[in-house]
Amino acid sequence: MAKSPEEEHPHKALGWAARDSSGVLSPFPFSRRENGDDDVTIKILYCGVCHSDLHSCKNEWGVSSYPLVPGHEIVGVVTKVGKAVTKFKVDDKVGVGVMVSSCKKCDCCKQDLENYCPQMMLTYNSINHDGTKNYGGYSDMIVVDQHYVLRFPDNMPLDAGAPLLCAGITVYSPMMYYGMTEVGRHLGVAGLGGLGHVAVKIGKAMGLKVTVISTSPKKESEAINSLGADSFLVSTDPAKLKAAMGTMDYIIDTVSAVHPLLPLLSLLKLNGKLITVGLPEKPLELPIFPLVLGRRLVGGSDIGGIKETQEMLDFCAKHNITADIELIKMDQINTAMERLAKSDVRYRFVIDVGNSKL
Amino acid sequence: MAKSPEEEHPHKALGWAARDSSGVLSPFPFSRRENGDDDVTIKILYCGVCHSDLHSCKNEWGVSSYPLVPGHEIVGVVTKVGKAVTKFKVDDKVGVGVMVSSCKKCDCCKQDLENYCPQMMLTYNSINHDGTKNYGGYSDMIVVDQHYVLRFPDNMPLDAGAPLLCAGITVYSPMMYYGMTEVGRHLGVAGLGGLGHVAVKIGKAMGLKVTVISTSPKKESEAINSLGADSFLVSTDPAKLKAAMGTMDYIIDTVSAVHPLLPLLSLLKLNGKLITVGLPEKPLELPIFPLVLGRRLVGGSDIGGIKETQEMLDFCAKHNITADIELIKMDQINTAMERLAKSDVRYRFVIDVGNSKL
Repeated sequence: MAKSPEEEHPHKALGWAARDSSGVLSPFPFSRRENGDDDVTIKILYCGVCHSDLHSCKNEWGVSSYPLVPGHEIVGVVTKVGKAVTKFKVDDKVGVGVMVSSCKKCDCCKQDLENYCPQMMLTYNSINHDGTKNYGGYSDMIVVDQHYVLRFPDNMPLDAGAPLLCAGITVYSPMMYYGMTEVGRHLGVAGLGGLGHVAVKIGKAMGLKVTVISTSPKKESEAINSLGADSFLVSTDPAKLKAAMGTMDYIIDTVSAVHPLLPLLSLLKLNGKLITVGLPEKPLELPIFPLVLGRRLVGGSDIGGIKETQEMLDFCAKHNITADIELIKMDQINTAMERLAKSDVRYRFVIDVGNSKL
Repeated sequence: MAKSPEEEHPHKALGWAARDSSGVLSPFPFSRRENGDDDVTIKILYCGVCHSDLHSCKNEWGVSSYPLVPGHEIVGVVTKVGKAVTKFKVDDKVGVGVMVSSCKKCDCCKQDLENYCPQMMLTYNSINHDGTKNYGGYSDMIVVDQHYVLRFPDNMPLDAGAPLLCAGITVYSPMMYYGMTEVGRHLGVAGLGGLGHVAVKIGKAMGLKVTVISTSPKKESEAINSLGADSFLVSTDPAKLKAAMGTMDYIIDTVSAVHPLLPLLSLLKLNGKLITVGLPEKPLELPIFPLVLGRRLVGGSDIGGIKETQEMLDFCAKHNITADIELIKMDQINTAMERLAKSDVRYRFVIDVGNSKL
């Protein structure tokens, strides 16, 4: 008979888990594996609350396995290292993002694109090599292969830096891959949530002109005055959209809901690039004329590799970029999830795991 | 009162024109402008029959103005040059493609991308600077600004080379722009018509592995044995499609009808590029997951600039690439159009204008 989550591994752990598609989280005692030769054991201090966590808790993608401990924007301190570990030592400040394993042998892995490895293992809601379930960062500790652990820059706040591990790399990686970094070019950021607000900051740090494209007129002042965007466009205002047609070089589309692409494509110049990082469940309508007549492209991108994630963290540290966060205790998570479902957060909840009673 | 098409210019010309959306073509006497300082007068010898001609004759894009003389794959011999003409002399073999003018001042024009100039003037169904209508290559002569005239390579057959002026550049330009030219990479060509069959030949000349993706199993033998494709995939065969998933680096999608993108996207590897050069009237369904999870892109491209068109002609001449054609006389054009509407042509009709009674 399979052992219970509490007994299958030697190290006692405490987390909060969703038990069914209601998505309600509650305390969950489980266990973590022994620290192997290549492993780093981490005492978790902070964990960001990503929209994916909400999708997973409620089984909105249809692949959730309960009990499910979410969390893939994990920051903490190293408490133990295996004998083969060279990257880290005890007391180092470290991060763990969306993945904790990959095959290390395929073309993707060899190119530092572990995120696209067919055997990439998600930080939670996945099955480990030993057949046991992986639980995420809404918990007090975790054991992770050093290759998938990030070094947290000295000057980066642990709490506000945590969301960069998913939101940050998700917008940084396509900007690098698709060449959206030419100083002075005009970047549109569609959707001003967890990903979008980081994209604004990274875009500005790269020397781009940044325009936020949002359905919420009330976000204008904050986008410009607090986040540093150069301008703001209400996507439901046809006159303003028309005036901005053909003015943007790149757009990062962070909107996860089904939405029309035509208005965004129309904003692009010749050779403009629209990169989608959200994951709408249904196909979007793709008008072909603006693609062909303007030599525009629509591309996708999914988080980023470990090497690039470290580069992103170092870039953000250099430019003093963190997420704007609301720090919560673990027992506030269900209320936070309800607010997240209504996009009522500026712009990311982060759980103060280290100071919460689990 | 405006002068009649026969009287508005000094040079008598004969062509065949569609008179209404029936699309039926019939003899049409009109006139051409005097040869200006920068102009080249061309006696037309051959003109390819592009699917756009059919769309335009039948007003399927809703922008046709009758009478309409189609034809933008024009090859002929220079009979007169203006005093400022440096590129050509009398008796030169030359070609004229999809456009005959642009502003020459904008960013597009300065980058040799006249095809994307907002003032780009189509070879037919457009209005010239003097307010008169432009008539295309289904006619005996034409007067064109030297900048928009191509030099026809010595060793290229005039008849089978003509379709390259539209079909050739339409597939060549995206291959160059999107970087689809790495020797040994795998190119899919969706749709084996006028554009597709040229894409196969150009892809092979570039050293790519080429797979034709078609709805017609009967085209397999010809694709491989005659055109030189490496393999053939019937797009309606789920088993074969599944076996080919994730094997292609690039796809050129020449299909103009509304069609599903998911099967094509699934054929692409990580970082794969799907370039559409057809113009379906309605939006296509774009599934986002394959884009994001495979960092794939869907891009568009519209013909090419004059400089690149000359490069394409020279490339094709070097590699002995021409279109596979059926040569017809002008009075066979209506039958040819009927067959074209049914895709019953291997692979391009070309009108033998010089030997036709107009």
